[in-house]
Amino acid sequence: MKLAKKNLDERLNHTYDAIIVGGGAGGLSAAIYLARYRLSCLVIEKGRGRSLWMQHLTNYLGLPPDTPGRDMLKQGQEHALSVGADYLNGYVERVTDEGDTFAVQVKVGKKDSIYPVFRCKYLVAASGIIDNLPQLGDMQNVYNYAGYNLHVCLICDGYEMSDKRCGLFVNSEGAINTAFVLNWFTPYISIVTGGTCTVGEEMRAKLAKHGYPLYEQPIAKFLGRNHEMTGVEFTDGSVLELETGLVAMGSHYFSEYLQDFDLKRDGNNLVTDEMCRTSHPRIFALGDLKQGLNQVSIAVADGTLAATAIWREIRRSSPPRIWTENVKQRDLSLI
Amino acid sequence: MKLAKKNLDERLNHTYDAIIVGGGAGGLSAAIYLARYRLSCLVIEKGRGRSLWMQHLTNYLGLPPDTPGRDMLKQGQEHALSVGADYLNGYVERVTDEGDTFAVQVKVGKKDSIYPVFRCKYLVAASGIIDNLPQLGDMQNVYNYAGYNLHVCLICDGYEMSDKRCGLFVNSEGAINTAFVLNWFTPYISIVTGGTCTVGEEMRAKLAKHGYPLYEQPIAKFLGRNHEMTGVEFTDGSVLELETGLVAMGSHYFSEYLQDFDLKRDGNNLVTDEMCRTSHPRIFALGDLKQGLNQVSIAVADGTLAATAIWREIRRSSPPRIWTENVKQRDLSLI
Repeated sequence: MKLAKKNLDERLNHTYDAIIVGGGAGGLSAAIYLARYRLSCLVIEKGRGRSLWMQHLTNYLGLPPDTPGRDMLKQGQEHALSVGADYLNGYVERVTDEGDTFAVQVKVGKKDSIYPVFRCKYLVAASGIIDNLPQLGDMQNVYNYAGYNLHVCLICDGYEMSDKRCGLFVNSEGAINTAFVLNWFTPYISIVTGGTCTVGEEMRAKLAKHGYPLYEQPIAKFLGRNHEMTGVEFTDGSVLELETGLVAMGSHYFSEYLQDFDLKRDGNNLVTDEMCRTSHPRIFALGDLKQGLNQVSIAVADGTLAATAIWREIRRSSPPRIWTENVKQRDLSLI
Repeated sequence: MKLAKKNLDERLNHTYDAIIVGGGAGGLSAAIYLARYRLSCLVIEKGRGRSLWMQHLTNYLGLPPDTPGRDMLKQGQEHALSVGADYLNGYVERVTDEGDTFAVQVKVGKKDSIYPVFRCKYLVAASGIIDNLPQLGDMQNVYNYAGYNLHVCLICDGYEMSDKRCGLFVNSEGAINTAFVLNWFTPYISIVTGGTCTVGEEMRAKLAKHGYPLYEQPIAKFLGRNHEMTGVEFTDGSVLELETGLVAMGSHYFSEYLQDFDLKRDGNNLVTDEMCRTSHPRIFALGDLKQGLNQVSIAVADGTLAATAIWREIRRSSPPRIWTENVKQRDLSLI
């Protein structure tokens, strides 16, 4: 059932088997599986996630490669609702462990916000990451191209950049090393720091050896039209012509609501076992939040794994359903 | 490119980066990723795989739950071809390790068969399993219902069996234990051995305690119409009415072509690392052939992982592509 301000009261006395924070690929896959395991679950989606920005899902089996991410999300939301999952647009502010349950505090509505608290036995952290983008005065200028031919994922979109003149947009010297993987796809790489970081002599020498020019002036704006970026104009008026771009500026991890938990991490990524269980036995993490590849296919499989682990645990601790004599007489017909 | 008898000669002198045995969900996902990593790959599909039998992909994110497996496979095949993978209908008879390459011997064509040998650096075993079905004199009677409401996967289709009168078709006493998981979904379970195995006193007592009747007569035929199974008629003329069924009779693993390799296994399943690499460093295994859940979502992610591991290894052993002065002058325009 789709929840909103007007009807969410119905669920405040219910303890969900699982609450899933994030309605992206991983979260929706988890919801579909959980619901099909006849478990109650609630997906809480804050909106504007990473897969919503994807203009083309170029590498996900079963969908034509020009399918926008939003189409997959819409289909998945309908699918989850059709098998009995609950879905709520809201922002999870905090999760607290009550022993056998978690209390999940949500902000619902941007205006006249309300702050309901939902309860669940298991928590699935599927809230993902969002890529940092070049910070310009006019961010709309960036959004016009990000997700089109200004890419954020080398694994997803390296192929699209094949042998094209590519700007690599970085905000740290370390991120420049992305060039030495990107060059599998194209050698025509220009490094653009926009003046956000300093670059040492060793890196300059390495770039020179590879023939990759370095641009350190601040960016004024991206050039292009119809969502096709054709270059960058710097504040000094100079222009760098490009055919494509890759932004490698790190990501923001949406996991502030887990602040009360000292979960094991590897850098920013949550460490999980083979079933996506974190170091807390009742918290699972999926997709981009955890270690491993940031791919739709991986998140979808993660949802499968976490849901199955939760189901196993709940099933094994539940009494078996027997076929009583009454039921047998009513339902079985042996002619 | 789609290969066939008339054009496959073109590829006999080529060493593929990878050959993928099996064009199911895992194999096609691997092909899409490998091709997008600009690696050459060939998918060899024998036909009639497990996902082709699926009438409804009920739990795969992004596709409506009434999507037939064959639609996903068709889309995936087109997708892989569109990014440059090769695809051949054929049966892989044997793989031999030549040191840096594998020789893959294929039977092509059921009539006037030819036996080409293709070569590759990496092998991806994605040939899956097929479920054993009750063996009746008229197998068409079984095929009329298998994949419809006579299911083979509890995880995929338990939900469809919820609270229905379900026949559990087994061919070993051990398989009867499936009932004690199936009963999460329905308690109205009738065990049907068809006389294929003996059942000990302990199991009989356990079934009696749960109220699950046991039918040990040989099966004459399934009853029903329009692919909807409504029961079983035994050879003694008695009829068991059912609303659904689950076949738990084990599976055949399609991995005979790996006979020359002493790969590490766990029962029938290949043991792999977190990137789907088997105990042979250049052989990967995906989906149902390996340990873990037999789910489309898992196979698709496995394809992503194996392709990425192969790409990493080939990339790291390749010289970096530099932007030479000539190229720079031709391609870079800094106005």
